[in-house]
Parts: sequence; C-alpha cells; structure tokens
Amino acid sequence: MATVASLGETDLIRRVIAPLLKAGASSNKPAGWKLRQGIGDDAAVLSPPAGRDLLFASDMLVEGVHFRRNVLPAKWIGWKALARNISDIAAMGGRPAAAVVSLGAPGGTDARLIRGIYQGLASCARYFRMAIVGGDTTKAAAIVVDVSILGDVASGKAVLRSGVRPGDALFVTGSLGNSYASGRHARFVPRVAEAQAVLRRLPIHGMIDLSDGLASGLRLLSQASRVRLSVDLAAVPLARGARSVEQAMNEGEDFELLFAVSGRLAGRVPRMIGRVPIMRIGQAARGQGVRCLDDRGKAVPLPGRGFEHFSARERS
Amino acid sequence: MATVASLGETDLIRRVIAPLLKAGASSNKPAGWKLRQGIGDDAAVLSPPAGRDLLFASDMLVEGVHFRRNVLPAKWIGWKALARNISDIAAMGGRPAAAVVSLGAPGGTDARLIRGIYQGLASCARYFRMAIVGGDTTKAAAIVVDVSILGDVASGKAVLRSGVRPGDALFVTGSLGNSYASGRHARFVPRVAEAQAVLRRLPIHGMIDLSDGLASGLRLLSQASRVRLSVDLAAVPLARGARSVEQAMNEGEDFELLFAVSGRLAGRVPRMIGRVPIMRIGQAARGQGVRCLDDRGKAVPLPGRGFEHFSARERS
Repeated sequence: MATVASLGETDLIRRVIAPLLKAGASSNKPAGWKLRQGIGDDAAVLSPPAGRDLLFASDMLVEGVHFRRNVLPAKWIGWKALARNISDIAAMGGRPAAAVVSLGAPGGTDARLIRGIYQGLASCARYFRMAIVGGDTTKAAAIVVDVSILGDVASGKAVLRSGVRPGDALFVTGSLGNSYASGRHARFVPRVAEAQAVLRRLPIHGMIDLSDGLASGLRLLSQASRVRLSVDLAAVPLARGARSVEQAMNEGEDFELLFAVSGRLAGRVPRMIGRVPIMRIGQAARGQGVRCLDDRGKAVPLPGRGFEHFSARERS
Repeated sequence: MATVASLGETDLIRRVIAPLLKAGASSNKPAGWKLRQGIGDDAAVLSPPAGRDLLFASDMLVEGVHFRRNVLPAKWIGWKALARNISDIAAMGGRPAAAVVSLGAPGGTDARLIRGIYQGLASCARYFRMAIVGGDTTKAAAIVVDVSILGDVASGKAVLRSGVRPGDALFVTGSLGNSYASGRHARFVPRVAEAQAVLRRLPIHGMIDLSDGLASGLRLLSQASRVRLSVDLAAVPLARGARSVEQAMNEGEDFELLFAVSGRLAGRVPRMIGRVPIMRIGQAARGQGVRCLDDRGKAVPLPGRGFEHFSARERS
C-alpha cells in the first residue's frame, strides 16, 4: 500500500478511512439517536433523543508521548484514542453516542498504519454501539489522533466531580498499576456498563476516571467537592504485576472509575459487576486534602504526585 | 511568564486557560442552549433546545503546515482554529453553539504563546456568541490545535452538499484568492450570518465552504449532488491582490460559501449582505463534472487541482 502523501487526502478518506467508518455509523447508535448525515459533508447531522443532556469532551493522543508506533500496534492506538474519550463519558454516568476523529500524520506514513488506527477506532465504536461520524485529516510531524465525543445522560443527572459529601464511601472499579508493562493502558474497556449498573442500584454523588492515577483522581475529587478524602492503602486493589501501592496510585492510564456514594447506602454497591471487582477504598469527611491510612489506621503521606503531561519522559 | 513544562498541565489549565474561557462560556450560548457544567469535569454537560438537529465536526491546525508561530500572531492562530470550524457549521445552514479544544505543545513553549492562542479562541467564541466548554492539553513535538464544534439547525433542515439540482443557480459569498499574503486565511469571519440571511429569503439546495479553494469546492459539490456545474470564469470574484483566476480558484483557505438555489428563485438572493457581496458565478445541469466557460462562453479546462493536504509544501 502507498504512503498517505502519494494517496492524497481525498483518496485516503475515500479508500481507507470512510469504508471502515461508514458501515458502523449507520447501525451503531444508542436508543433515541438518529444519524441524518455521516462522513462526507462539512459536518455530521445528528438528531438526539428528547429529555437528555449532552456530554461533550475531547482527548488527544500524540506519538512519542502517549505511544510509540513501533511498540503499540496501530489498531490499539485507535482503540485507545476512542476508549479514553468513552471513559470520560462513563465518568459522568453517561452513554457514548458519537465521535469525530482528527488525524495528523507525516506524509511518508504507510497508509496501512492509518488503516490500522481506524480499524481500532471502528472496533471500539462497534463494541460500545456508538458511531464515528466525521473528522479531519492533515499533515503533521508525528502521528496525532484527537477524538471528540458526544454522549448523553438523563436530563440533570450527570455525575459531577463536585458532588461528594462528608460521610460518603469511596469505591474504585477494577485494579490499578502496571498499565504500561501489561499493555492495559491501550487495551482497556472503559467502565460504561459498570457505572450504569451502580446507578441502577443507588445514586452516585461524585465520580472521576483515573487517567492520571488514583492519587491525582483523589486530589481532584477532593478539591472539586471541598471534602477530605481518606484512603486505606491496604484496600487499594493492585493489578497483576503492579510493583507497589505507590506505582498503583501514580502510574496512571488505568481508566478505572473512582466514585462516592452515601455511606448509609454503600452496602448496595455490588462487590463484582460481571468480572470487574468494585472495591471500597475509603471515605469522605469534612475538611480538605487527601489522607492515606496504613494498615494500622495511621495517617501517612500520599505516595507520589500523579502524572504530569508536559514534564514527563516519553512513554511506550 | 514560564514555559508550559515548568507550569505543568494543572496550573496551565487553572491559571492560563480556564480564566480566559470560563467567563464567556457562561454567557455565550445561542437561544435555547443551557450549559450545566463547563470546564473542570470529565466532560461538559449541555442541554440543547428541543426540535433541533445537532451538527458535529472537527478541524485540526498544525504548526508548520497551517501556520508558523513566528509569522502568525498567537491570537490569530486561536481565532483561525475556531473560525474554520464555525465555517463548517455555516456551510450546513446552522448556528455554532459550543466547542472543545485539544492543544498539543512542546514543553519548552512560552506560556504567553498558549495564552495568546486561547485569547484568540475566546474572542472568536465571543464574536459568535458560542461557548468553549472543555478540551485537553498535552505535550507534542509542535503546536497542534484541534477544535471540535457542536452546532444546531432546525430539525431536518441541514443544508447538505448533495442537494444541488439541475437548473440551480450557483453563488459564492465574498471574494477569492490571495488569502495567505493578505492574512485573510486566519483573520476571516465565517459566513454564518450571510447563510442565515439567504435562508430567510429562500431555500438553499446545496452548500460547501471553500477551505480548499473554489475548484475543489465545485468538484465536491458536483460529485455529491451528481450534477454538472458550469462556472463563468469572468464572474469569479477576485480578492484584492489575487494574481489570477487560477490562484483565486486554487489557493484555498478563503472560507467563503459556495451554494446553489433554484434558478427560478435566484433573483431573491441579495447582491450584498451587510458589506459582503454575493456573486452569481454559474449553474447546475444534468451530467457530471465541472465545466469552466471563458468570457466568450467557450468551455475551457478547470484551472489547477485545489489544495492537497499531505503533499503540499508548508505554508506561512
């Protein structure tokens, strides 16, 4: 197959990208959504269901920062680019509905690599029954995949970071750490179904997805809700291969959910949803900041700082 | 001011980006839209008006491809990044409502440059009474600004590329060519008001914005509508400084609108809307392809090929 420069933008879209996305776009939509015009016009035209709020977010993946093309297979680059956005919708208690994809790539890029990325995007969209309805392609010095997502949630029912209350119990889905070495940083399944399953049983007061690590998630949730969060370090669920609770709390890219429910109703949260464990790891109280408790209940410093996007070294 | 690496992502957003965007986001929305949660959560929450379709698109600007940071002032980089997206909404006959912005930048970038870009984004959003409600920031080898936009249009009334009919008259807004040397490629006002003004007088059958030049726009409109388009080269409105009709048709980045209305009703299209001329440049007939007519009405080849994103040399 040719390079993207020899194909040109028109043929790259027509021959490589559009065929992968069009089939799925016409069939995959959550209940109540209609796709009136997909790829091929100046904008996509969608008809959303009445009585739902829209969720809108974007997330950019950059070669050499979030992945290396010789390490991560192209289809997992595509999967990760969309799954990160779906995770943001899950964290609001919503359903993903539609996405647009902007792709930058050097002119010399093999079109097979681009096809692989869009195969990954399309397969993630199919898995979540959502549609990729448009986007943009352009020349760039390195591969950049920026996805914007549109989701929905019952009117007034979006779960914000700011709703945690003193007395709430804190839970985390799945297990944390070792996401890079295990490949889970790319091959993860965002916790849409798990959040929906909890919401069918009881209200969630506050929620965030753990893209930059549990330590960072706790800090952001505490700041937004103006509460003090305490975490039992011994309860933090470590993923297979995680070296330490410090790694589990700071490596990032777990894409699990951290959420708070009323302490009184905490018993209604199931211990497993499908094959995903839901672990109680702490509680909220009046005050501010994040407090870690060791296995004797003694306060210890929060391990590490979470992931900083502009200063960190490159990742695999 | 510091570099983005020394500030870190959290402070870059909190101290530089969010203050510029938050004020506008709460006040600027088209009629019927409510912003329930803007910047600061996993996704923005918007309540759209009932009975309207959504328009959804994205457009990526890359340093070294679409602009050079030492040539184009930062606020015009920001203005252009959003205005290109608004132009896509205008071309569907819609109103812009909300946008999310993903920004990639090298760690050593002066935070003042980033502030300038967001000042340009915010000032474009204010001009069009729309809101920037979220986004992402990350490290990248060069500056990348990807904007996704959400607009709306009366249900079932989006103007597509595919609606041109034989017998239609073709019009173009404004004037074409010399967009780079004049700076108009960045400092342009997308034709939202002009499209709306035409739509109040008569239906538009098909429309496209001229991001890649009139020649390319004609070709895409002809293909989507399966009609033959004929253009009087002498009627193509040249911008001040445009060297030739060939330049005017192929340089691109004019962001004017090309549209078709019933030939019978063409007299209802005003010659000027505000200070923007609306010029009749041709017509549609049964058949395919694009035909150019010289000043004696004789068919001549279409000048040039339009802009190709992956093979072109860098632009200013």
